[in-house]
Amino acid sequence: MNTYGTLFKITLYGESHQKAIGVVIDGIPAGIKIDLNQIAEDLKKRQPGAIGTTPRKEADLFEITSGMFQGHSTGSPIHLMIENTNVQSKDYEHLRKHPRPGHADFVSEVKYKGYQDYRGGGRFSGRLTAALVAAGAIAKMIIPFKIEHQLTQVGSLTDMSKIDDYLLEIAKQGDSVGGTILLTVKDMVVGIGEPFFSKLDAEIAKMMFSMPAVKAVSIGTGFEGKTMLGSAFNDEIINDKGLTKTNHSGGITGGISNGNDLLVTVMIKPTSSIQKAQDTFDFETYQTKSLEIGGRHDVCIARRAGIVLENVLAIVLADQYLMYKAYQ
Amino acid sequence: MNTYGTLFKITLYGESHQKAIGVVIDGIPAGIKIDLNQIAEDLKKRQPGAIGTTPRKEADLFEITSGMFQGHSTGSPIHLMIENTNVQSKDYEHLRKHPRPGHADFVSEVKYKGYQDYRGGGRFSGRLTAALVAAGAIAKMIIPFKIEHQLTQVGSLTDMSKIDDYLLEIAKQGDSVGGTILLTVKDMVVGIGEPFFSKLDAEIAKMMFSMPAVKAVSIGTGFEGKTMLGSAFNDEIINDKGLTKTNHSGGITGGISNGNDLLVTVMIKPTSSIQKAQDTFDFETYQTKSLEIGGRHDVCIARRAGIVLENVLAIVLADQYLMYKAYQ
Amino acid sequence: MNTYGTLFKITLYGESHQKAIGVVIDGIPAGIKIDLNQIAEDLKKRQPGAIGTTPRKEADLFEITSGMFQGHSTGSPIHLMIENTNVQSKDYEHLRKHPRPGHADFVSEVKYKGYQDYRGGGRFSGRLTAALVAAGAIAKMIIPFKIEHQLTQVGSLTDMSKIDDYLLEIAKQGDSVGGTILLTVKDMVVGIGEPFFSKLDAEIAKMMFSMPAVKAVSIGTGFEGKTMLGSAFNDEIINDKGLTKTNHSGGITGGISNGNDLLVTVMIKPTSSIQKAQDTFDFETYQTKSLEIGGRHDVCIARRAGIVLENVLAIVLADQYLMYKAYQ
Amino acid sequence: MNTYGTLFKITLYGESHQKAIGVVIDGIPAGIKIDLNQIAEDLKKRQPGAIGTTPRKEADLFEITSGMFQGHSTGSPIHLMIENTNVQSKDYEHLRKHPRPGHADFVSEVKYKGYQDYRGGGRFSGRLTAALVAAGAIAKMIIPFKIEHQLTQVGSLTDMSKIDDYLLEIAKQGDSVGGTILLTVKDMVVGIGEPFFSKLDAEIAKMMFSMPAVKAVSIGTGFEGKTMLGSAFNDEIINDKGLTKTNHSGGITGGISNGNDLLVTVMIKPTSSIQKAQDTFDFETYQTKSLEIGGRHDVCIARRAGIVLENVLAIVLADQYLMYKAYQ
Repeated sequence: MNTYGTLFKITLYGESHQKAIGVVIDGIPAGIKIDLNQIAEDLKKRQPGAIGTTPRKEADLFEITSGMFQGHSTGSPIHLMIENTNVQSKDYEHLRKHPRPGHADFVSEVKYKGYQDYRGGGRFSGRLTAALVAAGAIAKMIIPFKIEHQLTQVGSLTDMSKIDDYLLEIAKQGDSVGGTILLTVKDMVVGIGEPFFSKLDAEIAKMMFSMPAVKAVSIGTGFEGKTMLGSAFNDEIINDKGLTKTNHSGGITGGISNGNDLLVTVMIKPTSSIQKAQDTFDFETYQTKSLEIGGRHDVCIARRAGIVLENVLAIVLADQYLMYKAYQ
Repeated sequence: MNTYGTLFKITLYGESHQKAIGVVIDGIPAGIKIDLNQIAEDLKKRQPGAIGTTPRKEADLFEITSGMFQGHSTGSPIHLMIENTNVQSKDYEHLRKHPRPGHADFVSEVKYKGYQDYRGGGRFSGRLTAALVAAGAIAKMIIPFKIEHQLTQVGSLTDMSKIDDYLLEIAKQGDSVGGTILLTVKDMVVGIGEPFFSKLDAEIAKMMFSMPAVKAVSIGTGFEGKTMLGSAFNDEIINDKGLTKTNHSGGITGGISNGNDLLVTVMIKPTSSIQKAQDTFDFETYQTKSLEIGGRHDVCIARRAGIVLENVLAIVLADQYLMYKAYQ
Repeated sequence: MNTYGTLFKITLYGESHQKAIGVVIDGIPAGIKIDLNQIAEDLKKRQPGAIGTTPRKEADLFEITSGMFQGHSTGSPIHLMIENTNVQSKDYEHLRKHPRPGHADFVSEVKYKGYQDYRGGGRFSGRLTAALVAAGAIAKMIIPFKIEHQLTQVGSLTDMSKIDDYLLEIAKQGDSVGGTILLTVKDMVVGIGEPFFSKLDAEIAKMMFSMPAVKAVSIGTGFEGKTMLGSAFNDEIINDKGLTKTNHSGGITGGISNGNDLLVTVMIKPTSSIQKAQDTFDFETYQTKSLEIGGRHDVCIARRAGIVLENVLAIVLADQYLMYKAYQ
Repeated sequence: MNTYGTLFKITLYGESHQKAIGVVIDGIPAGIKIDLNQIAEDLKKRQPGAIGTTPRKEADLFEITSGMFQGHSTGSPIHLMIENTNVQSKDYEHLRKHPRPGHADFVSEVKYKGYQDYRGGGRFSGRLTAALVAAGAIAKMIIPFKIEHQLTQVGSLTDMSKIDDYLLEIAKQGDSVGGTILLTVKDMVVGIGEPFFSKLDAEIAKMMFSMPAVKAVSIGTGFEGKTMLGSAFNDEIINDKGLTKTNHSGGITGGISNGNDLLVTVMIKPTSSIQKAQDTFDFETYQTKSLEIGGRHDVCIARRAGIVLENVLAIVLADQYLMYKAYQ
């Protein structure tokens, strides 16, 4: 379903080639100053431009149609809408007959019985994350925590100073790469997270996996910790605020924030759309077919995904923070 | 909060040292045959016994107090309760003063202001997973899919035939290890998963992270895929059922099952309780204190966690399967 | 909160004097034919025009920005928006200082700390029901039941053939009246309703009371039954379909539809805005103040409320019907 | 479904003739003193004893198995269970063949396909309200409001001093009567209620209609107000706390508490089980059949329902109060 959250509740709608995408943000306390520039800035961070990102560009002009008055939240839901302006009327119907590898073409054809809007990825388009970036920008206005994101690996490259050359080389091959993004939250308080099923890490993981192309999530040391011994993994508490000497647990113990920095690592798979020809199944001829997708795609969507993950994390934290306050 | 699910809805309660733990399972269609032996068998799989697991053992006798009549579900919620019989009356209060590293002692003291039941881990005890195993055993009675679990790594050991020797060695050191578990679901249909926020992988990740000690989750190739190129990662469709040549995406595309086997890898951190002395902070003296936990603990909880993860996955699938049917 | 429903889920936003009101409708199965004329017709039924209704009129032009493709639902949420075109820029701020009796001016000033959009009733305006009428028109496209509404009483008048004269007389006095509306649902099946807390009557009552000006709801004979004996009230079953000789229970037994016509009576209070002067409290002078609201208001909002209640009932039935199917 | 609430969340289970009924209460802040005597006292108020109530009596001994430690809530869910001790093993199966008028026998046979536990009303038994009384007693421990209930009419009798004679006369006839109950909440604050769909009156109505035998609910003057003019119905504000001269709106404006006493009137239908013979349909012979229910039933269940409604109202208020605090 398309609604997330208990107290800070977002409802997302839209497909990439219809009139608009948008989000309804419910549960913003009245009187929060809504900084429109901040929303615009975050949206800009999601836009392409860097090497390895698509040359297609949309202005992402957003409009707030309700829930804001004299610069502040009214206590009524904010509806924020972004029109789809850069929509090309080319024919997409062939995608139904020979689905693109890695894309949702096949599953949506089956699940929605051919009624899905298949143009440009439809609801599975990365475009919908623009609305989430905007919602997250608002979420950040009500939480006292500071979130940062950092691209930590791209394909086999770990030295990010060489990213431009690396991605140009991948682009030349007509191929794509994935990557990993590290999210860090500073200034956490102790006690955010509501066991058993609204644990902080559980909600974060849910929302990270809700983002297109995410295939793995770890907290703290995560998978790397599988070869560690308990005596090394355990984080020793060293002061009365709960500060720990190490932070293998990534700031979460028992599903509850422990006051140390939150550390979340997210893996983004290689962009599914590539220039190279790929084989797929042709549902007309019932034979294998070589497919060239064409178009101009991100070589490395991970390069643009950081702000999306950051702001989605803000949405989770806003919801959890309001719950935390309700029970204090 | 302690309720999960939309149509197949579970509510979990309990602490390890009070009278009982239990689960209310709502949304079981009327007329499902409830196989009590199956529940008992799954509970047995969770019990210790193997090398590297705790010698403490509880019978895990469960009782169904409602929702079942003449061997079948009635359409009313099933309440299943497991009494805490092996409860020792030793003094646990010192845990509040010098919290155990890796445990929720410190965060629960702060969050619940000292009112938490701190005995034996309280609500953070792995004991609560017994109720989830039972609920999952019932979930398996309403889904047509087949779930398997497999321990794929323990500490630095990947050859599972040597696990006993390996864990005896770790135990001798007074230490602990974590591990990874692979969950596989066969006989999937295409179309399970409800974007945008109830995607199949998102719900699975949420529930995996709800389990104690889980610190990372990946679908399909997961983190390993970060160095792959798109042309290698993309799974080529090879027949009209959506079968793919490879399964890097782990059976999920766009958050929806694609008919291939579901592949979920879960990382379990090393058991927090170890025999070795560890440092922690003493909230009475405000100094570092060397702590020996004592007791007899699992050297490798991952060895017992497979059935828990399997059955929790069944809970997710039961909920998603009912939703899938509702919209078909 | 502003989201209702489990499987057919609506999210409502908007205030009367901002850019737009709208609704996101989630959970519409893919492939439902969306009849835009039907939506327009239902919206028209809500518009004023009859004697005793306000002379102010808005076109209520709606726009669907997503979730619909080639005339059918796509399986993605439908977003339907209605712009606020007839917005007058007059000064409303005085309402904060001397709140209108019967209106939400005072409670919203306190609850939202003065940040609410107080213009024209803001989110408490009857205007928001236009979006619900549209959502309900879509709900009717997925349920097999037939809903009708009927104005059964207006003030002290029970002979509806005399309503025009009656309301002209009330208008002349500068006063207003309420009324009762009877909703009837035909072609019900047996089994709609999910005890214990999603009983059919419970969900209906919740949504009726969510509508502005509703102060009482009864099912079947309702309050009139308080003087009846059980032997008279009980509905005798007379055939194998569950048809009953009488229908005092209004088609619902134990919170579940029994196959007989659903009968719901809703009481609408007299319109709060009247021409006559009324006393209120002046928060500047801390004295009683005589208030003349002015403007042109409905003398009897009940005359326009029927289609709102009918369509809101359709929303409840759509949600319940999808749940019913999920468990069959 | 069987879970209600957002922050104060209850999950109800049980059928009258299985081992137990019970409730899981989630969202109680840690550190609330749990007064077991208060729970017992409220349960006692629900028990029969007065003239016109059933001579069958159960001890209603409750047990708390989790969520409470050293006399206080722990922050983990409280599970409260009441065993069904007074269960008679007589044969109930005939109810499936000739369903009792007014009861859920027929609808549950159809909805649950014959798998329902039909003994003694099963899940539709008034017995389940005992668990809700207990949950409500706990809800009252976290809200600052004071709730009272009052029987205002029984059948055609409005002078409650004559109730015993009146009910004895009805009993002699082998018949039953319904009644109306007025709930009053004092010491309300301004601002409780979350539009658009969690309005205070909407949530109250939902939960009142969830109770067995409730067929009508009104707030304030309710249905009686249908003949009033707006100038008389509107409540004039007379001081800066929002006190109104009259209270026709029953303490709720725009779905939000206005600080005046909350007034809720609930109509309870005549008890469905009567001594007199009644006709029903015989699903074996497909003919009308005269049915004598036998047993010893409440002549007027309304006489015992006050505490149920009061405590269910407390559950609604606890949930709303926590939400109100979260957004302040």
